[in-house]
Amino acid sequence: MRFSLGLDFGTESVRALLVDLDSGEEVGEESFQYPHGVLDETLPCDEATPLGPDWFLQDPRDYLEGLARVVPGALQEAGARGTDVVGIGLDFTACTVMPTDRQGTPLCCKEEFSADPQAWVKLWKHHGAAPEALRIQTVAEERGEKFMDHYAHAISSEWLLPKALEIRHRSPAVYEAAHTIVEGADWVPWQLTGRLARNACCAGFKALYLSHLGGYPSREFLEAVEEGFGDFYEEKVTGPIVPAGRAVGGLGAGWAERLALAPGTPLSAGMIDAHMGVLGVGITQAGRMALVLGTSFCQLMLGEELRLCEGPLGVVRDGIVSGYYAYEAGQSAGGDIYAWFVENCVPARYEERARRQGVSVHDVLSAEAEKLAPGQSGLLALDWWNGNRSILMDAELSGLLVGATLNTKPQEIYRALVEATAFGTRRILQAYRDGGIEVRELVGCGGLPEKNPFVMQVFADVCNMPIRLAGTSQAMALGAAMCGAAAAGRERGGFDSIHEAARRIAKPLKKTYEPDPEHAALYDELYRQYVDLHDHFGRRERLMHRLREIRASSQRPPAGDR
Amino acid sequence: MRFSLGLDFGTESVRALLVDLDSGEEVGEESFQYPHGVLDETLPCDEATPLGPDWFLQDPRDYLEGLARVVPGALQEAGARGTDVVGIGLDFTACTVMPTDRQGTPLCCKEEFSADPQAWVKLWKHHGAAPEALRIQTVAEERGEKFMDHYAHAISSEWLLPKALEIRHRSPAVYEAAHTIVEGADWVPWQLTGRLARNACCAGFKALYLSHLGGYPSREFLEAVEEGFGDFYEEKVTGPIVPAGRAVGGLGAGWAERLALAPGTPLSAGMIDAHMGVLGVGITQAGRMALVLGTSFCQLMLGEELRLCEGPLGVVRDGIVSGYYAYEAGQSAGGDIYAWFVENCVPARYEERARRQGVSVHDVLSAEAEKLAPGQSGLLALDWWNGNRSILMDAELSGLLVGATLNTKPQEIYRALVEATAFGTRRILQAYRDGGIEVRELVGCGGLPEKNPFVMQVFADVCNMPIRLAGTSQAMALGAAMCGAAAAGRERGGFDSIHEAARRIAKPLKKTYEPDPEHAALYDELYRQYVDLHDHFGRRERLMHRLREIRASSQRPPAGDR
Repeated sequence: MRFSLGLDFGTESVRALLVDLDSGEEVGEESFQYPHGVLDETLPCDEATPLGPDWFLQDPRDYLEGLARVVPGALQEAGARGTDVVGIGLDFTACTVMPTDRQGTPLCCKEEFSADPQAWVKLWKHHGAAPEALRIQTVAEERGEKFMDHYAHAISSEWLLPKALEIRHRSPAVYEAAHTIVEGADWVPWQLTGRLARNACCAGFKALYLSHLGGYPSREFLEAVEEGFGDFYEEKVTGPIVPAGRAVGGLGAGWAERLALAPGTPLSAGMIDAHMGVLGVGITQAGRMALVLGTSFCQLMLGEELRLCEGPLGVVRDGIVSGYYAYEAGQSAGGDIYAWFVENCVPARYEERARRQGVSVHDVLSAEAEKLAPGQSGLLALDWWNGNRSILMDAELSGLLVGATLNTKPQEIYRALVEATAFGTRRILQAYRDGGIEVRELVGCGGLPEKNPFVMQVFADVCNMPIRLAGTSQAMALGAAMCGAAAAGRERGGFDSIHEAARRIAKPLKKTYEPDPEHAALYDELYRQYVDLHDHFGRRERLMHRLREIRASSQRPPAGDR
Repeated sequence: MRFSLGLDFGTESVRALLVDLDSGEEVGEESFQYPHGVLDETLPCDEATPLGPDWFLQDPRDYLEGLARVVPGALQEAGARGTDVVGIGLDFTACTVMPTDRQGTPLCCKEEFSADPQAWVKLWKHHGAAPEALRIQTVAEERGEKFMDHYAHAISSEWLLPKALEIRHRSPAVYEAAHTIVEGADWVPWQLTGRLARNACCAGFKALYLSHLGGYPSREFLEAVEEGFGDFYEEKVTGPIVPAGRAVGGLGAGWAERLALAPGTPLSAGMIDAHMGVLGVGITQAGRMALVLGTSFCQLMLGEELRLCEGPLGVVRDGIVSGYYAYEAGQSAGGDIYAWFVENCVPARYEERARRQGVSVHDVLSAEAEKLAPGQSGLLALDWWNGNRSILMDAELSGLLVGATLNTKPQEIYRALVEATAFGTRRILQAYRDGGIEVRELVGCGGLPEKNPFVMQVFADVCNMPIRLAGTSQAMALGAAMCGAAAAGRERGGFDSIHEAARRIAKPLKKTYEPDPEHAALYDELYRQYVDLHDHFGRRERLMHRLREIRASSQRPPAGDR
């Protein structure tokens, strides 16, 4: 018996998937909700002090607690011995970063910094660093930095540099005390193996590391951004760059015992969760797009050539599979918007019906929304509840709904929100094509596609393309297991390469959603209206920015600013 | 003992108020919810056939059933004898109209028409006649009809002519069978006295009757609108014009017995409910504006001179008080929007909290919304859930919300909706002033002010003016009682005139909401953004209209069109 263990650290929970490397079967699975979830109102230790708006933090102890729960759980479900696990791979939300001391202890776990929000994990969708992102972008464009071509000439406030600079501005003491600032995707392997490396995927897509341009941005550039910031990468982002599918090191004795695994088990470098989905659905070549649909959405492609186009917000050679350019575009909120709606905007009678029928509120809304034709609600929305990450690259944008009447029903708004996210995806598809990147097929994966046939059908209708579904509901964890098997190598019971691992254990695609031609025609027209609205509020009109300015001036300063 | 009885027919219920004419005290009161409420999905007799979007119908039997309940109820509460009631007055929502036969029986009550939506009462907010309104407006403008100056050059689809033409188009048989088409405000007195008259207020504000221009629009105009429609007024809108405060006739024997009142008791001509609020708060001269805040909002003024300005959608000499021009502007949805939100967008936890605290969901939302500073939510809305009735005069406009994020909470949306309605009111105030009509004081009345101190404070802050509250929570019913007393006349125990009635029984104003200067300054800026958005979607951009066209083309035809 030989197994690989895939670990998928998502926004709300972590999941372990045990894969039998001989049969390719998923034999054990366990997941664990983070006890502290997403911190968006206060810190657990200080419930009186509100966090800033659009701040999203996490508690890193949740990751380790989860690990200790899901690994034994998956082994137990499979009836497998931990010593038969030959390799471990992982993916993580990104850019999800934290400052730590030399030993890797997060500063938020230390008494002296525990009340400072800047010492905590900043989740990928934390948007506190907008001014920093703007500063970095402005300086990079002024200096004509070459790397900007690869990021659609925009720096997202979600990335490493803005988040690091935010720490430096809001809490110089935390910045000073930080030995390093590290992605969750690298912190977990560091904890498990004692070795700190930077995975090539996060480095490329979130930290501006481009191998064919000589690595990270220059010290001169950083110094131009801010005096004294020039040494940032040298001082705070140490460690070698390692691609996923290559081992960072072997499992340390303490963790081996705690998890009942063999000491020395190779641990692959991590990867961004969405990107891991590409491997998980078996994409290892150009032409097929992975539509990773979860809390946020990603549209990922592999390409043989470098094309610098409008849509993708990152182009990184070797970012997912060595020898290929990895293209990433994305929407900063997707399933998150639907979840926001269910949490905040759905009256009791829908909850009661869900309870009575033993289904989710999403199911009740979907069943009602499905009865409507495109455009029948008269509603149109812009999917910017968490800003816009591709095309406009503007975290200050916000959600909009138009067309409401006194007859508007919750299922109509729900449908409009689903359609808006689909229009956002179609706008990105269009950008890929305008940039000369052929998209022959869409493969849906992530948390949503399995659970939401209604959502998938809307996407197929809006994009007017068939969407195939991943053969696994755990594409990311399966991709991580592939990386674990590749990191082990053939000699230790794994595989020679990530390509071989994909051939051997990726699942055939199942179920296809075919577009309805009548719906597709109606959506063509609605999409034109969406693009007009998109360009009006995204490119011409500053209203959304003005509302944020007014908001900032009207409320109390967030915790940590005083 | 001598009493006057005021009847207030609202959108959801009817109320009776008994006033002691010696003391001025409100001594008895009873209200009754219409059993069929507002019909917006199906007819009661045919629950399988959906009504059109934005259709709002009522069952006229509800009005009479209500009458038979509230009159005895109010008498009983007061311990008064029905024979001591010297006069009766009433107000009604408008333009709320129905086709009837010669005896006044509504066609929807007749077997052969009961399944036809066109035979039912069209509630004021019914918006099925948009194409008809546009046609009438276009022809009137082309012909340079003088009356258009008095209606801001726009014909609302809520008014009599479009609604009548809608019947003619959608159901020629109903139109043909209709002996008359009559306002609820005139149908109730007709039922009670056997005499059909048209009250001057509805005639002027809803049916284009302008005494100083010679009455109703000409036959030539109507024929230009549509061949064969020229006789509409002569054939279907018969009966003398009678101002409120003058008797239509005396109570018939049957109804007198049923209501335990004296036969022959004088019944005043009716008035539009909102307009009755002007009398009810004691306004009988220029300078003070009545802010009538209920399901929809009205801003009403009396003026000594004729001013034709942008805002007001009606200027009618003698429309409320003889000798004065009555100015009306309005928002087609107000409290309706807040109610829509509570009904459709508020999660169970708010309902539970309301239940626990023994308050309404509005109260829970208001308490939370009150903690926010203006602009703090980052949200801005356009209050067009039921179109725009003043300034833009466009029923095709729809509601818009911008600024939503994943942190947006229900109370923030609630506050944004309240603010949007207040911005709409401020835009109307501005139009009055731009037109040279001085507004020295705001007097709040209607259903909302008593129940919603939070809403009133937002209005005071947004308008940056103190708002005084009516001394009665039943301004409309009290105004109706004044009219009843005036209709009775001094000889029958009433008063000489509406002026005397107001002096004797109107209540002194109570409680004043003072604007908070800090909030007012923040709202100045938000109001500027509101006006930009208002003008963008209301004057320049056709998106809202396009969405309605797409909606119309994507759904099944409404009941009655097949």
